[in-house]
Amino acid sequence: MGHFTDETAPMSTERTTAQRQHDTLELLATHGRGWLASASPEGAAHLIAVSACWTGENLLIATRGDSPTGKNLAATRTARLALGDPENAVLVDVTVADQRRSGPGSGELGEAFLAAMGWDPAEEPGAWDYFVLRPVRVQAYRGYGEVPGSTIMRDGRWLG
Amino acid sequence: MGHFTDETAPMSTERTTAQRQHDTLELLATHGRGWLASASPEGAAHLIAVSACWTGENLLIATRGDSPTGKNLAATRTARLALGDPENAVLVDVTVADQRRSGPGSGELGEAFLAAMGWDPAEEPGAWDYFVLRPVRVQAYRGYGEVPGSTIMRDGRWLG
Repeated sequence: MGHFTDETAPMSTERTTAQRQHDTLELLATHGRGWLASASPEGAAHLIAVSACWTGENLLIATRGDSPTGKNLAATRTARLALGDPENAVLVDVTVADQRRSGPGSGELGEAFLAAMGWDPAEEPGAWDYFVLRPVRVQAYRGYGEVPGSTIMRDGRWLG
Repeated sequence: MGHFTDETAPMSTERTTAQRQHDTLELLATHGRGWLASASPEGAAHLIAVSACWTGENLLIATRGDSPTGKNLAATRTARLALGDPENAVLVDVTVADQRRSGPGSGELGEAFLAAMGWDPAEEPGAWDYFVLRPVRVQAYRGYGEVPGSTIMRDGRWLG
C-alpha cells in the first residue's frame, strides 16, 4: 500500500468540495499569516511570510514596494499563496488586481487593512505598498488523501 | 511606536546568530514538512508543501518529475523553502545540486530518504525524482523583531 492511498480509511474522512470551501472561507476570515511565493520575470523564485487580509473577494497584503516581492508582483502580476499549514493546506493562485502606496491616499484599502490587521504600514520604515490579490484558483487539502478533489476554485469561481 | 519595533523589549529576547543556527539545525533534523517555492523560466511562481529530509549538508526532497515543481527545478536549478511557521520562520535559498529518478538506481539518495521519511516515492503512481537542494542562504527569525540579523548562512557558509 502506497503512501498516498489508505484503503482502510472510510471515504467519509475526505471532505466534500462544499465542506472544503466552507473551511477555507473560515480560515480566510481569520486574516492569518501565510506564505507568498512570487517570481522575477527571469524565473527567480522568492518566498516571504505575509499577513493576508481577506476582503470577502480578494486577499490584501502589504509589503515594501522596493522588496523582491514588491518588484516581482509589479512585474509579473501573479503569485501563489499558502495558508494554513502543510497538514491543512490552502493554496491560492492570484493575480494582482491593484497596487497602491500606503498612507493617506490609500483610502479604503488602508482602512480595511488597519481594521483587520491592527497596524498601519505607512508608520513603518520604508515605502510600503498594498497589493490587492484576486484569487483565480484555490486548492484545499488535509493530507495526501485529499489531494484528489482539492481544487475548490477555478477561473475565479468557487466550485462548492 | 511602529509595528516592527518594540522599544520596551529587552535586547536579550532576540537570539544570537549562533543560537539561531543551533535552533535551525534542530528544526532541520526533524525532517519536517515545509513549503517549496519555485519559478518557471518565464517567471510563473509555484508553491507546494514538501517533506524535507536534511542530510546534514543538503535538503533532499521528492516530487514528480513532470510536475510544475519538478520542471521548474530542472530548468532554473534554484528554489526557496520555508520551514517552521510564519512566527518561527526558516527560509532557505537553494541550488539544485542533483536530480535522480526514484527507484533501484537512486542508491544512497533513496536509502536516506526512506530512512528519514518512512516511504519510498518509487511505490507511488507516477515517476518521482529526488532533488538534492544545496543551501546557499538561510534566514531565521521569530517575529519582526528578529528580522535584523536573520541571515545565518551566506554563500553556503554558516555564520554562527
